[in-house]
Amino acid sequence: MKRKTIGILGGMGPAATADLFRKITSVTKASCDQEHIHIIIDSNTAIPDRTAALIRGGESPVPQLQRSARTLEAAGAGLIIMPCNTAHGFYDEVCAAVSVPVLHMIRITVQALTQAGIKRAGLLATDGTVQTGIYDRCFSGSGIELITPTAEGQAAVMDIVYNGVKAGDAGHDTAAFERTCAGLLAEGAQTLILGCTELPCAFEMYSLSFPHIDPTLELARAAVLAAGGELK
Amino acid sequence: MKRKTIGILGGMGPAATADLFRKITSVTKASCDQEHIHIIIDSNTAIPDRTAALIRGGESPVPQLQRSARTLEAAGAGLIIMPCNTAHGFYDEVCAAVSVPVLHMIRITVQALTQAGIKRAGLLATDGTVQTGIYDRCFSGSGIELITPTAEGQAAVMDIVYNGVKAGDAGHDTAAFERTCAGLLAEGAQTLILGCTELPCAFEMYSLSFPHIDPTLELARAAVLAAGGELK
Repeated sequence: MKRKTIGILGGMGPAATADLFRKITSVTKASCDQEHIHIIIDSNTAIPDRTAALIRGGESPVPQLQRSARTLEAAGAGLIIMPCNTAHGFYDEVCAAVSVPVLHMIRITVQALTQAGIKRAGLLATDGTVQTGIYDRCFSGSGIELITPTAEGQAAVMDIVYNGVKAGDAGHDTAAFERTCAGLLAEGAQTLILGCTELPCAFEMYSLSFPHIDPTLELARAAVLAAGGELK
Repeated sequence: MKRKTIGILGGMGPAATADLFRKITSVTKASCDQEHIHIIIDSNTAIPDRTAALIRGGESPVPQLQRSARTLEAAGAGLIIMPCNTAHGFYDEVCAAVSVPVLHMIRITVQALTQAGIKRAGLLATDGTVQTGIYDRCFSGSGIELITPTAEGQAAVMDIVYNGVKAGDAGHDTAAFERTCAGLLAEGAQTLILGCTELPCAFEMYSLSFPHIDPTLELARAAVLAAGGELK
């Protein structure tokens, strides 16, 4: 079977995009460069902030998302993935711009949690992702209960995403975020969904170790298989 | 000044390409996604092995290198960088395929070593890079003396690049490579040039800590400045 080229519609943010690229490489069964999958990445940092658009009336990211999707298709991508949960609020618009399939990271995450037998999970995500209810819709009927942080806890998630990872602050104070994680687990969450692609970067940057599922890693595995590759 | 989009001609290998992308993100002065530089990456794993072509009469990588360079230019890249030292043996052919500038990683490394006041450096690179003399030519007239490993040491460099990093073997035996590094330093090298882009990945994968200069990091910094960005 001829392998497909994976197109990564990225830049949301660049650290999360690099994280997905590295994860695809590390999960692929390959013994030399030529056995790895061809990947094209558009790390388009001109895409306006997704949360600002969804809940504060900010500039729509749709024109730039569609532009990048078309660039990837024109460059040879046979499927597209978006390492940004909040951007999945515009998933239908991205699909409409291209004729190649676009994998849906959140639906893939539902499958992974179902396979792991999880019944109650804590959702760590941006205000845009939480308030538009995209996770709730994808989890509807799955039998998995999602719980979200308090208002104070949600502010701590936004703080670590925007003032920690996106601002590149390696010395950022993570105490409030750690209290938020511990609080969700104390409420009975069996695992934490790192429902913003900057959060796996945060867990690595700040050496955090709460039980979690990483949608970026699940997307990496799904993309390798969809492209015709093999997992290690 | 309008910023240029950086095009990364990658896939040689994918781990080194992801490493360069991450380094560009981490050295850029930016407080949010939109302040980062737009980057387009073609991780073209169909590019034939460069060392095999240069010294063993293997298939030429030039057609695929030129194809990727054109893809990047067509997708909007305003400058191109190649995270593969050995591929710089085909630098003129890549430049001939596009009208945008292609930065030269090895010349940038000479500048960095000169600024650091280094007079004697150990070169860790693939057989293709060493035997074609590309480092020697770039260092000619710089006042910096390059020393290379013994035949046994050179085999250890090839082993860690191909059977360690490119093969994705996290448990690879690094003893022979470490002896090679120590040997060059004992011969008076003030620093080691990680003259294969898989070697910074190896230093990270295997937690090695010999004094070194990382051409991938120097290329990341030079690319940010050439694109009109600012360093942290």
